[in-house]
Amino acid sequence: LTAPIIEIPIEPRFYETDALGHINNVSIAGWMEMGRTQLIRHLATTGAQVPPESWVVVSLSIEFVAETFYGEDVLLSVTDLQLGNTSMTIHCELRQSGRVTVRCKSVLVYRDPSTGDKKPLPQEIRARFPQ
Amino acid sequence: LTAPIIEIPIEPRFYETDALGHINNVSIAGWMEMGRTQLIRHLATTGAQVPPESWVVVSLSIEFVAETFYGEDVLLSVTDLQLGNTSMTIHCELRQSGRVTVRCKSVLVYRDPSTGDKKPLPQEIRARFPQ
Amino acid sequence: LTAPIIEIPIEPRFYETDALGHINNVSIAGWMEMGRTQLIRHLATTGAQVPPESWVVVSLSIEFVAETFYGEDVLLSVTDLQLGNTSMTIHCELRQSGRVTVRCKSVLVYRDPSTGDKKPLPQEIRARFPQ
Amino acid sequence: LTAPIIEIPIEPRFYETDALGHINNVSIAGWMEMGRTQLIRHLATTGAQVPPESWVVVSLSIEFVAETFYGEDVLLSVTDLQLGNTSMTIHCELRQSGRVTVRCKSVLVYRDPSTGDKKPLPQEIRARFPQ
Repeated sequence: LTAPIIEIPIEPRFYETDALGHINNVSIAGWMEMGRTQLIRHLATTGAQVPPESWVVVSLSIEFVAETFYGEDVLLSVTDLQLGNTSMTIHCELRQSGRVTVRCKSVLVYRDPSTGDKKPLPQEIRARFPQ
Repeated sequence: LTAPIIEIPIEPRFYETDALGHINNVSIAGWMEMGRTQLIRHLATTGAQVPPESWVVVSLSIEFVAETFYGEDVLLSVTDLQLGNTSMTIHCELRQSGRVTVRCKSVLVYRDPSTGDKKPLPQEIRARFPQ
Repeated sequence: LTAPIIEIPIEPRFYETDALGHINNVSIAGWMEMGRTQLIRHLATTGAQVPPESWVVVSLSIEFVAETFYGEDVLLSVTDLQLGNTSMTIHCELRQSGRVTVRCKSVLVYRDPSTGDKKPLPQEIRARFPQ
Repeated sequence: LTAPIIEIPIEPRFYETDALGHINNVSIAGWMEMGRTQLIRHLATTGAQVPPESWVVVSLSIEFVAETFYGEDVLLSVTDLQLGNTSMTIHCELRQSGRVTVRCKSVLVYRDPSTGDKKPLPQEIRARFPQ
């Protein structure tokens, strides 16, 4: 059992609901972007000076485990991080009232922003998150 | 009685609804942007070669006359255009089943994209829309 | 000089930007909804037990004073509240680095959710916000 | 080689871009919802009278193959449909200028809207899409 890497409290916004009365899954895709951007910022503040434009999302898998509701705070956790050679896989989770409502896995590729070519992950990230 | 300058059919998307069961007003603000961008493109194709980045929205007034529903096509009309010296005011309207549901007035300023300074509107736009 | 009624810190999300590189004005319309919903919740917790579905937005005027940027916290303030007989006008403001970037005025009508008819505002709201 | 089940032309909206200059992947998740809702409507008009609230998205996998741009029409195709006992898997694809930019797989569960319990897919859908 390990602690989440980062946790982000989210207060659902009314326009994020839909006519079925709960949070629409497109809004949830937006929250998953928050998990990714805050993780990238977190990597930057732990020594690894990684410009955000170096990361490109190549895939996104979201599992909607239960409905997420308006009017109740949500906790978004980055629960795990797997480092590849030129990519990383971020695992996120949403909880509401202690119950998991969403699980998400995003794969990001690290690249040279000027050429668009893939690059090996910075050594500082590997040092910080030994696998 | 004059014809609309342009008309854009919109099929409401499910994620544009909210928990009250109709189209959320934030989604409608997005549709109003469609009216503006298509009008700017329309100006460009009528002789006035206006780069889109020359226009900046400085104000937006939306009147929600009636609810707009999912499951029924919407017609967005640019109904009027008023030209100032360095700005233009775009009037839009949404109709659903013949009934007006939204009226909107947007004010855009014309400027030099490199300096950000206001500029007089191109002569071609004045010629095309004499006031 | 009076204090804001409520203040809401907002951390801009990356998907709220657009290709011009700053926060898109449709995203800002969404933030204005946050101001309205949190004010309504605030009214409810100050004695006035007003069900949120009693309020309907009838108009929205947004003035874009300056660009709002990603990567810098924003402060949304509800700066003023004007009470009519069956409606209220909410004034909001966005600030970033101390600078006002947006001003917004929303008019909401108070109504009976079951019939849709307008109703006089609850006495508790008048008592709390004497005009 | 089989024809797509349905094709939906999409004109990207400016607010769907982000500061990297192309269509943000949250906007693309919204377009994928359009593919699902139009497929469900298509099933309904081919004999299977399936109320839309019978379907719940349980998972979503999106592969971002290439950037999708503003200013160029997009074609969203529902390319394949796999029927399970109580679920269906919808395959979608985005193309821009002939090039695939996104592939998506959504899994929807069919259920009784009143109880929330899973139900076998209607026989009409199986008859229409023999596997």
